Amino acid sequence: MAGSPSRAAGRRLQLPLLCLFLQGATAVLFAVFVRYNHKTDAALWHRGNHSNADNEFYFRYPSFQDVHAMVFVGFGFLMVFLQRYGFSSVGFTFLLAAFALQWSTLVQGFLHSFHSGHIHVGVESMINADFCVGAVLISSGALLGKTGPAQLLLMALLEVVLFGINEFVLLHLLGVRDAGGSMTIHTFGAYFGLVLSRVLYRPQLEKSKHRQGSVYHSDLFAMIGTIFLWIFWPSFNSALTALGTGQHQTALNTYYSLAASTLSTFALSALVGEDGRLDMVHIQNAALAGGVVVGTSSEMMLTPFGALAAGFLAGTVSTLGYKFFTPILESKFKVQDTSGVHNLHGMPGVLGALLGVLVAGLATHEAYGDGLERVFPLIAEGQRSATSQAMYQLFGLFVTLMFASVGGGLGGLLLKLPFLDSPLDSQCYEDQVHWQVPGEHEDEAQRPLRVEEADTQA
Amino acid sequence: MAGSPSRAAGRRLQLPLLCLFLQGATAVLFAVFVRYNHKTDAALWHRGNHSNADNEFYFRYPSFQDVHAMVFVGFGFLMVFLQRYGFSSVGFTFLLAAFALQWSTLVQGFLHSFHSGHIHVGVESMINADFCVGAVLISSGALLGKTGPAQLLLMALLEVVLFGINEFVLLHLLGVRDAGGSMTIHTFGAYFGLVLSRVLYRPQLEKSKHRQGSVYHSDLFAMIGTIFLWIFWPSFNSALTALGTGQHQTALNTYYSLAASTLSTFALSALVGEDGRLDMVHIQNAALAGGVVVGTSSEMMLTPFGALAAGFLAGTVSTLGYKFFTPILESKFKVQDTSGVHNLHGMPGVLGALLGVLVAGLATHEAYGDGLERVFPLIAEGQRSATSQAMYQLFGLFVTLMFASVGGGLGGLLLKLPFLDSPLDSQCYEDQVHWQVPGEHEDEAQRPLRVEEADTQA
Amino acid sequence: MAGSPSRAAGRRLQLPLLCLFLQGATAVLFAVFVRYNHKTDAALWHRGNHSNADNEFYFRYPSFQDVHAMVFVGFGFLMVFLQRYGFSSVGFTFLLAAFALQWSTLVQGFLHSFHSGHIHVGVESMINADFCVGAVLISSGALLGKTGPAQLLLMALLEVVLFGINEFVLLHLLGVRDAGGSMTIHTFGAYFGLVLSRVLYRPQLEKSKHRQGSVYHSDLFAMIGTIFLWIFWPSFNSALTALGTGQHQTALNTYYSLAASTLSTFALSALVGEDGRLDMVHIQNAALAGGVVVGTSSEMMLTPFGALAAGFLAGTVSTLGYKFFTPILESKFKVQDTSGVHNLHGMPGVLGALLGVLVAGLATHEAYGDGLERVFPLIAEGQRSATSQAMYQLFGLFVTLMFASVGGGLGGLLLKLPFLDSPLDSQCYEDQVHWQVPGEHEDEAQRPLRVEEADTQA
Repeated sequence: MAGSPSRAAGRRLQLPLLCLFLQGATAVLFAVFVRYNHKTDAALWHRGNHSNADNEFYFRYPSFQDVHAMVFVGFGFLMVFLQRYGFSSVGFTFLLAAFALQWSTLVQGFLHSFHSGHIHVGVESMINADFCVGAVLISSGALLGKTGPAQLLLMALLEVVLFGINEFVLLHLLGVRDAGGSMTIHTFGAYFGLVLSRVLYRPQLEKSKHRQGSVYHSDLFAMIGTIFLWIFWPSFNSALTALGTGQHQTALNTYYSLAASTLSTFALSALVGEDGRLDMVHIQNAALAGGVVVGTSSEMMLTPFGALAAGFLAGTVSTLGYKFFTPILESKFKVQDTSGVHNLHGMPGVLGALLGVLVAGLATHEAYGDGLERVFPLIAEGQRSATSQAMYQLFGLFVTLMFASVGGGLGGLLLKLPFLDSPLDSQCYEDQVHWQVPGEHEDEAQRPLRVEEADTQA
Repeated sequence: MAGSPSRAAGRRLQLPLLCLFLQGATAVLFAVFVRYNHKTDAALWHRGNHSNADNEFYFRYPSFQDVHAMVFVGFGFLMVFLQRYGFSSVGFTFLLAAFALQWSTLVQGFLHSFHSGHIHVGVESMINADFCVGAVLISSGALLGKTGPAQLLLMALLEVVLFGINEFVLLHLLGVRDAGGSMTIHTFGAYFGLVLSRVLYRPQLEKSKHRQGSVYHSDLFAMIGTIFLWIFWPSFNSALTALGTGQHQTALNTYYSLAASTLSTFALSALVGEDGRLDMVHIQNAALAGGVVVGTSSEMMLTPFGALAAGFLAGTVSTLGYKFFTPILESKFKVQDTSGVHNLHGMPGVLGALLGVLVAGLATHEAYGDGLERVFPLIAEGQRSATSQAMYQLFGLFVTLMFASVGGGLGGLLLKLPFLDSPLDSQCYEDQVHWQVPGEHEDEAQRPLRVEEADTQA
Repeated sequence: MAGSPSRAAGRRLQLPLLCLFLQGATAVLFAVFVRYNHKTDAALWHRGNHSNADNEFYFRYPSFQDVHAMVFVGFGFLMVFLQRYGFSSVGFTFLLAAFALQWSTLVQGFLHSFHSGHIHVGVESMINADFCVGAVLISSGALLGKTGPAQLLLMALLEVVLFGINEFVLLHLLGVRDAGGSMTIHTFGAYFGLVLSRVLYRPQLEKSKHRQGSVYHSDLFAMIGTIFLWIFWPSFNSALTALGTGQHQTALNTYYSLAASTLSTFALSALVGEDGRLDMVHIQNAALAGGVVVGTSSEMMLTPFGALAAGFLAGTVSTLGYKFFTPILESKFKVQDTSGVHNLHGMPGVLGALLGVLVAGLATHEAYGDGLERVFPLIAEGQRSATSQAMYQLFGLFVTLMFASVGGGLGGLLLKLPFLDSPLDSQCYEDQVHWQVPGEHEDEAQRPLRVEEADTQA
């Protein structure tokens, strides 16, 4: 696209104009459609003669805050592992999430809570929006370092819509259960991002290979992200499950699953590591697979042992994926998966969906008692057998993979639009393309933007 | 002040003696005056025949913990952006906050909850104390790097008293509403600090200019502060609002406002940035302006659209302030505002107060229903019209600006006392004045204290 | 132990096999023994005709999350202060905690909640398990940098059992109160680790002395740990106290105690510091002693003044310990206490136990009202006088010291088994022994493993 001056001018205006447009359009749609729901609006609430202590706020808001910390602290810092891309990792996560939560409030609102011409919002819509943001950030992990912020915003614009539709099909049309989103969040987000990354394949990416690794302190920053994701994952999976025993059991299952995936990750990392040494990339990521793999089944009668076994398996598969499959993914399938979302969200997400099939198929009235109507209302009401529910769960996985793949393909075509802010092959994984970056030491503060020159691609 | 040896001896004793004196005096006052309130003291509570589940602890403590994280993690790390002042930023924040929360428990207790000779404490007093600490830390942000820890403790000693009086005048005498403290916390804290910084103006500060910027990893540490402030701000604004829909709605409004200020901050930062590049200072700070600007109005019927619009405006004003107004503030007004509190707390705080005027003026029985008596009890009881409430809100802003300015002036005179631990112009923004500092690398660990020598000012 | 090749092969397999064995065995025991309790299992809960809002989950889970953050973020990052041991500090904390929480669920379950052949789990067992993990991590702080991960796992295997037995003796057999674990967690964990460190004494440790200090940014990472421990300690001490006023009062007391220990830490650190300069080690650690010292008494009628006085004393003792006692501990007692657990957990834990003796001895019906039967049921029921309760508390301290010392001695013998992964004297405090470590800068990424060579010990 033309020479360097106009390219620079284009970059100068593309991100701000897109932000202003998206925020403006969102605000207008909010003005027209979005209203407080009856748990948020005093006038509506008090009409119902409820006690303040019964307000759903008190049962969901602490979980919301944990989820919020996962999205912004967890995802943000987990991606800071790249040595020269820390500002972009945490900054673009911040930007993407701030936009996507508004946009998903609208999309999910139209699909799930549109009554008498209005979308009604409250703590549940906040959690649902943050969940959708999670899927968007998973996808962005596959693209990390290879796209500009305007590209990412456009991706979110598309992905949030498809996420909402897929979620609607699964939860409302198919009656599939997926409280922690093994399918709707992890599988969808991962394969959307991977297919998108395939479309954007860069054969010359080795020009930026020297920046693709971590440095010592960037790995420590990334561990902040890992640990916050790990500790709050029980709240993530339980944020929207049934009140009382529903949330209680879901949190407990997730806690056990994460503990087991941590042990299997350390075991496998040392086993396949050079000289028996542990690899920080595995610890940062695969130890979290236990949270992903029980996303569907943690609200079910998984049993504590089941949670441990599932977590153990997920940590194993994820670590082996980082070691053996990621290189093949790039060399054979031409998918460049910067932060390994296939290993952390893709495979464990699919495993989690299949585990949901299994556990749903074993559901009985005896095991769930009164809880059956909360977890599997269609079975409780006699509309479905457990086997039939299991088949629907399995079908939900296929639908998700289909939506994710087609959506990722569309997203790739969109992001290939030639006027967008895609960095050059030699500028990938480099903050200076997008940020005014100080040096690491006083005297470096004014170092020249080396990345700008060494490229002949434009 | 005498020569270097006695100066060193003075510094050696000043901070410890002041800490010991303040802690000792506070403890004596606690012994005489402070008692558990009836929600904290089992003997008093059970007399009332209440259920344990009704204890206010469960409705406020999760919010308190979020506020606590904002004060200590958020403010502490946000100020770590300076390259050689990280220990002081996080350490002095810690010290100041630990003192100010005790002192404000006493001051606010005397003013708000002094009954039969005793101050009664519980989760509400913990939140109120942390709020007051917030104002003190805002003020310290303007002074960051230019004052010693003893000076900061003296500032807190004064500011907490004036904060308490201003808050008492607004909330109790004028019947002004300000749940999240656009006026009492942000406006007061910012202008107190700015006027104080004016009084302490250092014409020779360029001697320390080379340390006034950030380095790569200090900016990442600062983002930890930013993100924790951002995610927990909904809890900050809602921590003390009415139970039930009051807290629910306040949190929701703040969540939307912050999302919008993030988008406008990215847009404006890229728009005014060199070459269209984003500036980390803007992202770290202006993205938070959405929390400040709805501090007064988030408990009112702001509507989700109103929250977005307010946040958008605040992010815009704040970013432009960093770019264009901060330099003028120093060159024309001789106010050296190290961390830009005028942009993050000053202007957005005033805007937030004005937004409160507007939204209060629009209050109707229809819009608030039963909630009117919780948000605007004087209107609900017919003692005031909505317009009259709006005028009181506006008057509250002027009172706050007056208290902050006069208080900041007094504070400046106090901190100019010649025997205090003010660093030399060439020692500003430098940890080694106050801390035993290791090097960044092994071999630097014993590097000489260069700052000590290069000065002829003493 | 044989030559370098077989040693390397041994290391290669030791950690993974131990992880796999421990996880496998734990999973089998879970399958046989662990079941959801009646607050977690819908079928059991609904039989009881309870309201979902009454589920204990809502009264304990927010505290659990705070405790969880303390264990994984707090302890993990607090130990990152070593310049070349950040991966191991945060990574091994993660591994140890993930194993120990499962193992302690079993051990505590057998001792405390074993009914009709099953252990019943829920949010209380999650908190109890995390508490036990706290003790294990305290012990590991004394050993930090001098043991391999397999050694640490074996230590946890032993320590969790002894922790459970000691806790059972104190709480169930002796009727001792210790809600926040001054004895069961801090005193036990500290002296177990210190005695263990004594057994593992390394006379040639100065070979690694150059890596034993911090660097600038590692101290900032450690402050993340400090601040998260500090802010959430009120939740730690109150997580398992009586609902209602019990949790409320405990949190309030802890909040005050921590504030006072912060002021005394700053005062003493400057007073004993070279040139009046503050020492980051003191701030990172001693400021937390206020949480430890009220671990036993914060659920009692300590009064706000009592909390301040206790915290003040603890911060003072802890800071003086770092300055004067830690060197003696190594030179005279041959105890190498890497992170100073004697100062943060040992002495303040013992002080906390003694404070509990004092406050228990002052208990009266008047002061506690109906709360007496919750805090001191044996006094309320007339089975014990307050003085008698105080004597039991004191006896509990001696029992704890005995269990910790004997256990630490056994642990030391276990960890001395010659085939374990103990690092050489010249390899202590060095990540590269256990991890694939990138350089701090791009060009260092491939620097040779210098530590491997410079040793002749093997």
